[in-house]
Amino acid sequence: MASAAPELQTPTPIETLARLVAEDLAAVDSIIHERLQSPVGIIPQLASHLVDAGGKRIRPMITLGAARLLGGGGAGAHNLAAAVEFIHSATLLHDDVVDDSGLRRGKAAANRLWGNPASVLVGDFLFARSFNLMVETGDLMVLDILARAASTIAEGEVMQLAAVNDADAALERYLKIIDAKTAALFAAAARAGACVAGKRGAEADALETYGRNLGLAFQLVDDALDYDGRAAAMGKDVGDDFREGKVTMPVVLARDSGDMEERDFWRRVMRGDQREGDFARAQTIMKKRDAISRTIEAARGYAERASAALLSLPKNAYRDALGDLPAFVVSRTH
Amino acid sequence: MASAAPELQTPTPIETLARLVAEDLAAVDSIIHERLQSPVGIIPQLASHLVDAGGKRIRPMITLGAARLLGGGGAGAHNLAAAVEFIHSATLLHDDVVDDSGLRRGKAAANRLWGNPASVLVGDFLFARSFNLMVETGDLMVLDILARAASTIAEGEVMQLAAVNDADAALERYLKIIDAKTAALFAAAARAGACVAGKRGAEADALETYGRNLGLAFQLVDDALDYDGRAAAMGKDVGDDFREGKVTMPVVLARDSGDMEERDFWRRVMRGDQREGDFARAQTIMKKRDAISRTIEAARGYAERASAALLSLPKNAYRDALGDLPAFVVSRTH
Repeated sequence: MASAAPELQTPTPIETLARLVAEDLAAVDSIIHERLQSPVGIIPQLASHLVDAGGKRIRPMITLGAARLLGGGGAGAHNLAAAVEFIHSATLLHDDVVDDSGLRRGKAAANRLWGNPASVLVGDFLFARSFNLMVETGDLMVLDILARAASTIAEGEVMQLAAVNDADAALERYLKIIDAKTAALFAAAARAGACVAGKRGAEADALETYGRNLGLAFQLVDDALDYDGRAAAMGKDVGDDFREGKVTMPVVLARDSGDMEERDFWRRVMRGDQREGDFARAQTIMKKRDAISRTIEAARGYAERASAALLSLPKNAYRDALGDLPAFVVSRTH
Repeated sequence: MASAAPELQTPTPIETLARLVAEDLAAVDSIIHERLQSPVGIIPQLASHLVDAGGKRIRPMITLGAARLLGGGGAGAHNLAAAVEFIHSATLLHDDVVDDSGLRRGKAAANRLWGNPASVLVGDFLFARSFNLMVETGDLMVLDILARAASTIAEGEVMQLAAVNDADAALERYLKIIDAKTAALFAAAARAGACVAGKRGAEADALETYGRNLGLAFQLVDDALDYDGRAAAMGKDVGDDFREGKVTMPVVLARDSGDMEERDFWRRVMRGDQREGDFARAQTIMKKRDAISRTIEAARGYAERASAALLSLPKNAYRDALGDLPAFVVSRTH
């Protein structure tokens, strides 16, 4: 029977983790839908458009998995995981305004449907809601972790904005940006999971290291996919970073190993002077200079560090699933 | 000597309150300037442009005054008052993006100088910073009060956005909007002041009532000033609400007491079909229908309720200054 075929496939690490925390995740989804309600109709409409668009819930799953790995879980972990997803969702809404994006998760971005003002304000609402949820956990340390992550994310976003069209930006600067705008929330999601499980020392440090390195790997893969035709199948606009003049790792690597003509090309296009055929040429140069494969290689390095960080923790099904996740994230690309 | 003349004038209630909490306010200003620092240069530049533009710090003064009234004060109150001002500043940055404002506090609005994306992201940073500050107070009840206010503000802003160009909007809807977008933060600022002074019962309720009614009076006066030429002297664009199609109380009152021709006029202009001379005509109709004076009358009612709410609290210089503030806010208009 054809319909039985999917069950014969090995589940991906994301699927395995999702099964392990399925009950927790259902509770988190209930909280998310309950807490994006408001008598102000646009709020649930716009917010549901985003949160129901099939995001993988990878950040809340990390919180839940981390809590379960260390013997925790329950209502506190659920609120916290929902808060993490709310921070992430608020960031996405504001990102799409900042980048003037057309697509998000394969659907029209919310700002295209409701306008930039509504996306800004509903983002603010979700951000405030995340703090309401955290306050309800009654755990000041967890609040501290996530409030710090929230300001770090905003700093990372501003850093990225300032670096746009800076064709000479160095790799170090790029890594600082993705550490702040992406890895900080992964790190906080994992550390907060340890904290709600009552583990605030070495275990929390290990999970934070896991989250940070997973986040870096995740972002590098995302940036590589922006130059890869297959990204279109994942509901993303391909070439967004290129058109926006974002000097991501693939660009830095191609630029720094290119000849003079190529360096002139990168300088021109990253400064915003783009012509027809430039994106295709960028892809050709990246292939020639191995820029995508070297970016993936860097992602693999972070992924390995992420998995290694878990080795000091108790071995169980949660640790296994979390440990397999980083390599899988990197494998999305090929 | 001419230079001595200002000392002969009776200080305004804002000046009296500012003198009473002068040391606290200096501490709050230090915290504000310290906490808007960031290695990401645009953040302190853009944020300083706003917070140094001569805002009256009325919300943090309410927190400080409320705390002192009840025998509290010190570091906790300072952090909290700074957090309140950060929430307010974040809201202003996002408001100016949403309204596409040109002026703020008599200077070019930040979004005109740094662009909308930077204003959105620096607003997010300030909002996150406010939570960092609150977490440091270590007081979950205070966090709860301000986190709730933050989501209420966002709801109020979205409500207002949805009501733009709705020429038939009723007074009740308008009052709901200003209760959420403005009065909620005044109420939270006052209640939080009581809480850091260790008073969480009837005293906190009284101060919350004070703050809420003061906030309503404050917003009604602001909305009246939008139709008053003298507002230009206060560093505001006159006619902003009109041009944006915001159906504020002066419009509702003029519309509902107007003849058919006037109602047609209000319907047309509030829906966004505006021609040269329309603003002057709006001002003329408002004068004829006493719409401004009736709005101020309503503001005076809220101001009286605000002051009355303090009567149950210990009588001291702080209570006197806070008690005189609402009537002074209303007197700004004439």
